[in-house]
Amino acid sequence: MKTYKGYLIDLDGTMYKGSEEIAEATRFVSRLREKQMDYLFVTNNSTKRPEEVAAKLQSFGVPAEAKHVITTSMATAHFIKERDKGRSVYFIGQEGLKVALEKEGLSYEETHPDYVVVGLDQEVTYEKLAKACLAVRNGATFISTNSDRALVTERGFLPGNGAITSVVEISTGQAPIFIGKPEAIIVEQAMERLGLPKEDVVMVGDNYDTDILAGIRAGIDTLLVHTGVTKKEHLLNVQQAPTWVVDTLDEVPV
Amino acid sequence: MKTYKGYLIDLDGTMYKGSEEIAEATRFVSRLREKQMDYLFVTNNSTKRPEEVAAKLQSFGVPAEAKHVITTSMATAHFIKERDKGRSVYFIGQEGLKVALEKEGLSYEETHPDYVVVGLDQEVTYEKLAKACLAVRNGATFISTNSDRALVTERGFLPGNGAITSVVEISTGQAPIFIGKPEAIIVEQAMERLGLPKEDVVMVGDNYDTDILAGIRAGIDTLLVHTGVTKKEHLLNVQQAPTWVVDTLDEVPV
Repeated sequence: MKTYKGYLIDLDGTMYKGSEEIAEATRFVSRLREKQMDYLFVTNNSTKRPEEVAAKLQSFGVPAEAKHVITTSMATAHFIKERDKGRSVYFIGQEGLKVALEKEGLSYEETHPDYVVVGLDQEVTYEKLAKACLAVRNGATFISTNSDRALVTERGFLPGNGAITSVVEISTGQAPIFIGKPEAIIVEQAMERLGLPKEDVVMVGDNYDTDILAGIRAGIDTLLVHTGVTKKEHLLNVQQAPTWVVDTLDEVPV
Repeated sequence: MKTYKGYLIDLDGTMYKGSEEIAEATRFVSRLREKQMDYLFVTNNSTKRPEEVAAKLQSFGVPAEAKHVITTSMATAHFIKERDKGRSVYFIGQEGLKVALEKEGLSYEETHPDYVVVGLDQEVTYEKLAKACLAVRNGATFISTNSDRALVTERGFLPGNGAITSVVEISTGQAPIFIGKPEAIIVEQAMERLGLPKEDVVMVGDNYDTDILAGIRAGIDTLLVHTGVTKKEHLLNVQQAPTWVVDTLDEVPV
């Protein structure tokens, strides 16, 4: 198996399972650290700040700091700033999105925003969605942090951000720009941060439909690990196989 | 133009425009009343009780009582009762739906309901949607009162029930049974209440995509009136034209 200089790594199902450590993943990142390889954790979780994401990884012994994390909220805020077509945003979302937008110098505006951003918000209400619909119909560019259909919780599968986003999409007839995996946007931003050529970077994840597709769309190699969502039999029907497939990250040379 | 014995009549855009009377419509129903023809108002509004719907019509001088009204909430409750496959319901919705379900003797159940019903709820929250998703994944039959994408208000177009319903549909991957127009279900129930053969009944409305399609799907004649949504040019591209098209209901003989 080829070794790389930069590793983009998914979180849930790859680095841990909910609140459980995946020991092979902790060892894998520790080995990357020893060899001074670059790595970034790339997550569709829009609700957490990068410090919180890093703290959870640290609790499992993974060498991770905030600078190793890119969330869909950060990617969304960066996307808006780079686009340079207005800086006012009406958003539905939690702390992670609020902080990310502020860090990029974007301002909050309810009635005539340049952008409407929908991120996961477990306090979402009809009124919040109504404001989003009005602003999109009023010409705001419609962005969604990610299209995940379900949120895995101890209670079961709750509505994911893709499901919440659909309210605005169905009501206005406007499709959003999605930023998170399986879109290439978040991966391209992660690559920009690493500053490495495409052939030196690999996307590592457990979910073919998000992690691996995002890597494929961004034109980089991909590594699927069978510690999470995608089972071996799912790979029989995919259009393009991952570059590499392993049972655990212990099998991956660095 | 043929005359009928029974008339199924839409409300907004046909009988009134928001808070404005349509005088021709008031005269039309008064003529039906004089000739002792049967009529029923058929509405996708799930939030109001039939008494409230009748009161609004009365305020414009339309001869209407609660017995002349069938709402999607009433049709939904009746559908569940007739189906006879369980009587417990978890619902998202307002007063009109709550009362309609109670009137059919259906009970409220949050965790293991036989049915999940989604109707328009301007107080909808993530938690209400989460409960609906969990129950549908748990095997409850998923019903939506209607698929309207937008709610016309003085503020603009707010999310309609079809948009709210999409959260549960997208998140669970389960398509709901829709009861309201353009589905035939609500029209078939209205016909049952009139007790007339199909050839004696006509569906009257201003919206091709809801009223007229519902009539066509129920196999009855249809009458489009140009006082609301559907303009003449929209009819050029439809698969099946309405049986009759008029500018105002003054043109319709009874």
